[in-house]
Amino acid sequence: MSMSRQWRLAARPVGKIRESDFELVEAPVPEPADGQFVVAVTHISLDPAMRGWMNAGRSYIPPVEIGEVMRALTLGRVIDSRNDQFAVGDLVQGVFGVTEHALSDGAGVQEITAAEGISPTAYLGVLGITGLTAYFGLLDVGRLQPGETVLVSGAAGAVGTAVGQIAKAKGARVIGIAGGSEKCQLLTDELGFDAAIDYKHGDLKDQLRRRTPDRVDVFFDNIGGEILNQGLTRLAHGARVVICGAVSQYNNVDVTGPSNYIQLLVSRASMIGFVVFDYADRYPQAIAEMSRWLSDGRLRSIEDTVRGDIDAFPSTLERLFTGGNTGKLVLELQK
Amino acid sequence: MSMSRQWRLAARPVGKIRESDFELVEAPVPEPADGQFVVAVTHISLDPAMRGWMNAGRSYIPPVEIGEVMRALTLGRVIDSRNDQFAVGDLVQGVFGVTEHALSDGAGVQEITAAEGISPTAYLGVLGITGLTAYFGLLDVGRLQPGETVLVSGAAGAVGTAVGQIAKAKGARVIGIAGGSEKCQLLTDELGFDAAIDYKHGDLKDQLRRRTPDRVDVFFDNIGGEILNQGLTRLAHGARVVICGAVSQYNNVDVTGPSNYIQLLVSRASMIGFVVFDYADRYPQAIAEMSRWLSDGRLRSIEDTVRGDIDAFPSTLERLFTGGNTGKLVLELQK
Repeated sequence: MSMSRQWRLAARPVGKIRESDFELVEAPVPEPADGQFVVAVTHISLDPAMRGWMNAGRSYIPPVEIGEVMRALTLGRVIDSRNDQFAVGDLVQGVFGVTEHALSDGAGVQEITAAEGISPTAYLGVLGITGLTAYFGLLDVGRLQPGETVLVSGAAGAVGTAVGQIAKAKGARVIGIAGGSEKCQLLTDELGFDAAIDYKHGDLKDQLRRRTPDRVDVFFDNIGGEILNQGLTRLAHGARVVICGAVSQYNNVDVTGPSNYIQLLVSRASMIGFVVFDYADRYPQAIAEMSRWLSDGRLRSIEDTVRGDIDAFPSTLERLFTGGNTGKLVLELQK
Repeated sequence: MSMSRQWRLAARPVGKIRESDFELVEAPVPEPADGQFVVAVTHISLDPAMRGWMNAGRSYIPPVEIGEVMRALTLGRVIDSRNDQFAVGDLVQGVFGVTEHALSDGAGVQEITAAEGISPTAYLGVLGITGLTAYFGLLDVGRLQPGETVLVSGAAGAVGTAVGQIAKAKGARVIGIAGGSEKCQLLTDELGFDAAIDYKHGDLKDQLRRRTPDRVDVFFDNIGGEILNQGLTRLAHGARVVICGAVSQYNNVDVTGPSNYIQLLVSRASMIGFVVFDYADRYPQAIAEMSRWLSDGRLRSIEDTVRGDIDAFPSTLERLFTGGNTGKLVLELQK
């Protein structure tokens, strides 16, 4: 009987995630019942949102329960099937979790038939929830207009790289905030950002002032903390601050709120929270548009793939919260 | 030659306002040139916004300069006129400042012909900028719909009492947050609020939870700090947080930001800043509607009038920041 390993939630983290918050459990590879199929997971998407899913309490989706397999977006191959819709060999995408094998009845699973020149992992990145988050956050929540200026924090991350490229495709000026000169170079030299601000070098406030002489119409914030706070001082009249996440704060017991929020009043601006799932009925339209941009080179899927064993999950996840990744962080399982 | 006294800004306050930030200056009552008139100020409106006007730096209007008469909304009588539009004896409203007498060419000045049963001071309160702030903040910025729930902080203040009454007139459920049992009684027993929360007694978080079982659709915040922060945990899906002011923070050197701002994401909510001056072209419509409510008793102008001498200005102003007033705080000058 072949065995399969999976990471289950063992404890709710207090502050920083520790490896002991997870438990690596081995169990037999499941057998499909009628209508079911078995997926061998090939790619696990690592997302800052995972930190939130580990907390108890009200959020936009139920928390992962203690003892449950840790939730994760994944790609995999069907290796056994008693389901008419999914055949052995199909490449599929679903929320299979941090596991080597998963049993599914097909609910919430999409088959991926990757177009020419598009890597399957793009479906976890720019053509997946990551890209959709950037797309709807920027265009619907942020109501970006051509010619406007976008400021994006976490700009070298999965969502940030997509936000900047989508903004350029829509005719905006884009300034990214990222940590370190390599990331900043990626933004300006490879992804077409108009400017990059390295928050690790030099005064953030001063750099923001110099790089946004005409202020900011849409501030897409993934980071929170002092970066959000300083960004608020650069809002143009009627600006939209899109709250996508707060990666700098997820591991904090005491979260820092943006003391400059009163700038919303001065600037007649709004700060808007959103959850991409609310746009599910429009995913196909967004994916179609982003696929065209991928094909014609206006959009690149920036991926940071760690090839390893499922053992590597906790340490790979940690990189998200320490600025260790560039673009979409994916754990590719080696067999 | 008769003399006139006025308070000029002497220093920019750091933190709490001190009397030494102002200077009481005596000068001859001005003489009108052709086209000008002289007003004897009768009522000085005291507004939390004054604290902001004393700071240097970018805001929604220019700061008061050092040496300038402190800016204030006022009522007064024309006592000398060489202007065709304004005659001696006219009751007028304008931004004459904290002064016993002012010279004007009529720009920005309105004659008040008070309707029956409406006190002239209502034009500094519910029919003035205070009421207009409540009206447009709640209805336009907050987009209140009948049947929704409104939470208002600083509920016993000038804007708060107006917000609650307007919300009731529009068919909403209203919960007010105020300091002390007397203020809370005013809200529920006299102004028709559905509930009042005394932030000075009992656990704020717990009271909020009990008083908003169906959560909050519009949170109209005048206060900031912990009251804003706790209110954010009670937002309904799609809630609007109207940022009108931050009285608890104006005197602080280190402002506390709302660490629960990430609830905007969970609740798909927005936090929106506004400045009432942007609605100037619609003031007449709002004043007409609020005048009708005043006449039919649905709206009351809650005024806290201090009768005294212009000397009393700094100490009266201080009451705004210590929870010392109920309703619209006005200094009525005794002659």
